[in-house]
Amino acid sequence: MADQQARTDGDKRSTEIPAIRWEEPPEGPVLVLLDQTRLPAEEVELVCTDAPALVEAIRSLAVRGAPLLGIAGAYGVALAAARGYDVADAARALEGARPTAVNLSVGVRRAEAAYQAVLATSGDPTEAATAALAAARALHREDAEASALMAAHGLALLDELLPGGGHRILTHCNSGSLVSGGEGTAFAVALAAHRQGRLRRLWVDETRPLLQGARLTAYEAARTGMAYTLLTDNAAGSLLAAGEVDAVLIGADRIAADGSVANKVGSYPLAVLARYHHVPFIVVAPVTTVDPDTPDGASIEVEQRPGFEVTEVAVPHVPVTGAGGGVPVAPLGTQAYNPAFDVTPPELVTAIVTEEGIVSPVTAQALAELCAGSRQVTTG
Amino acid sequence: MADQQARTDGDKRSTEIPAIRWEEPPEGPVLVLLDQTRLPAEEVELVCTDAPALVEAIRSLAVRGAPLLGIAGAYGVALAAARGYDVADAARALEGARPTAVNLSVGVRRAEAAYQAVLATSGDPTEAATAALAAARALHREDAEASALMAAHGLALLDELLPGGGHRILTHCNSGSLVSGGEGTAFAVALAAHRQGRLRRLWVDETRPLLQGARLTAYEAARTGMAYTLLTDNAAGSLLAAGEVDAVLIGADRIAADGSVANKVGSYPLAVLARYHHVPFIVVAPVTTVDPDTPDGASIEVEQRPGFEVTEVAVPHVPVTGAGGGVPVAPLGTQAYNPAFDVTPPELVTAIVTEEGIVSPVTAQALAELCAGSRQVTTG
Repeated sequence: MADQQARTDGDKRSTEIPAIRWEEPPEGPVLVLLDQTRLPAEEVELVCTDAPALVEAIRSLAVRGAPLLGIAGAYGVALAAARGYDVADAARALEGARPTAVNLSVGVRRAEAAYQAVLATSGDPTEAATAALAAARALHREDAEASALMAAHGLALLDELLPGGGHRILTHCNSGSLVSGGEGTAFAVALAAHRQGRLRRLWVDETRPLLQGARLTAYEAARTGMAYTLLTDNAAGSLLAAGEVDAVLIGADRIAADGSVANKVGSYPLAVLARYHHVPFIVVAPVTTVDPDTPDGASIEVEQRPGFEVTEVAVPHVPVTGAGGGVPVAPLGTQAYNPAFDVTPPELVTAIVTEEGIVSPVTAQALAELCAGSRQVTTG
Repeated sequence: MADQQARTDGDKRSTEIPAIRWEEPPEGPVLVLLDQTRLPAEEVELVCTDAPALVEAIRSLAVRGAPLLGIAGAYGVALAAARGYDVADAARALEGARPTAVNLSVGVRRAEAAYQAVLATSGDPTEAATAALAAARALHREDAEASALMAAHGLALLDELLPGGGHRILTHCNSGSLVSGGEGTAFAVALAAHRQGRLRRLWVDETRPLLQGARLTAYEAARTGMAYTLLTDNAAGSLLAAGEVDAVLIGADRIAADGSVANKVGSYPLAVLARYHHVPFIVVAPVTTVDPDTPDGASIEVEQRPGFEVTEVAVPHVPVTGAGGGVPVAPLGTQAYNPAFDVTPPELVTAIVTEEGIVSPVTAQALAELCAGSRQVTTG
């Protein structure tokens, strides 16, 4: 089950927003999530005491973003283990909460494997639970370290592609500290550029239907003090045509073995526009996002989400009237097509930036070498 | 001033939605507009008794859409004349209400010219007012006739480009009877295909920020009984990549002499996507949309609208909290880039369909010939 608690005024408000944390109050361990569906109007935390509560939080997008889903999944397994639930059951439920993000599955399996390994040798569920938690904590820490490395690699790439600095970066959806154990993926690169005085502006796509850009990326950007401007997804073409964008940077939910990138719907149109305007299109994601078992873009399962996300607008503090809990904006009975993600083929991706290095041009071989643990930076 | 009146249940509900009508109650002539900002939730009419009320209705988008703006502007001049206001003042105010739509200016000037011509010869303001109204009525009637011709030409083009029928058309913004004295522009083509059993599906872009697709095009489509599906503007790329779109059809707010097309923001990205996927991108607009005084795309003035249209979501029946009267979806103080239109260069436009015929390929010379009154259909 999940409880809610409003953050009090006394809470520290830093630029580092804790999207997830493990706590051990006397009543037993809990996983505390910042409820991202309530941002930016309210900072409300969800306290999960079991895996089903976390599954619900993942499905409702209270917790979201590929790297953070991996961390959440691992902690979810640790939570089930610590509280004595069936760990395998919890792991399967967590893995199935959202189909497209490979990180979720990777995180879940890592904590589960740690649990099973200790259980097999020691036979002690408590020791095994401790191992699961250690695995989750390690993933959390590694993700923060990976963020820092991606930011450094990404900024170096920007400076190489666009000497002179003053970068004007367009981003889509949300890829900062709200999706990560650290400062995120694409957003972390913009933040690194900002800290070094080399970011002229972050253009923030609002990202319909759920407005993660307007609600979450603008929230992250505002806290860092960087220059940022919000736009409808429709207006990105005008900016590119006007020469106001130096690079497009996005995160990824899954990268196939051939370099096809699944990310928030609207990423692929940006890739086509970027190519048309000869602007670099850069994907920033940890290597865990690369799924060697998915051979190509066509093999990526794209989550279809409910039509009411399109036919209704969910607004905070408003009495609900529509079937999906939002305010209807289309005639009753309107059918909607609502894929959560789209797939960008590798030939439209200028570079994939990971914590292990940069792949450019994007080829299956270069990606495979990176995933094999090579720390060799491949630039073409 | 403008009054509001809800349409009663006894009103005829046909597929033909009267977006504008002239009435002459005992209190004096009025212009009655369907308030498009309240659709689809409510059908409320605005009754304008003077030009300033109409200017406000145009600015607030209660009345909108290029052809309809021309008709509204002409009636506005007639209204000022009939009620004894300064006609030149009214004409300038109406022309300036929205800068991008050339039809508004054309309609205003046509009624004003009729007024001035009669005034100059007869010296009788009443006769001149009658002439202005006759000019507005003629424009209204001609626009309905133009709609029918555009629909026929457009369907013939579709059948030529896509033999076999079963057209799956993607459209953006709103271009049906709500923007026209008749059945519209791009939407009228889809409607003609539907009536002849040759429309498989109309894909309706929701069209952020003001959701004219979700609110208005879905409303028009629902009334005709055609198969239609709503999508976020971001999802159009996925549809095109999946081969689910046979043609993209849009209207236009202004067409420059070189064939550059200004239309609702988000049209240009569709044109780039359509080109990338080898799908026809067809613009449907009356010849009044072509502005020979605007040489090229760079000369088109693009209206920048208030940022709150992006940082807030306007929803009906909701207590207002934001500066713009909507519900904030971005952090307070967020700056937004909000161009109302974008410009698509002629090389991305497969064809321009007008009531006078089709221009394809789109060249300055072919457009000029069309505007010179040639009824020669030019197809390349």
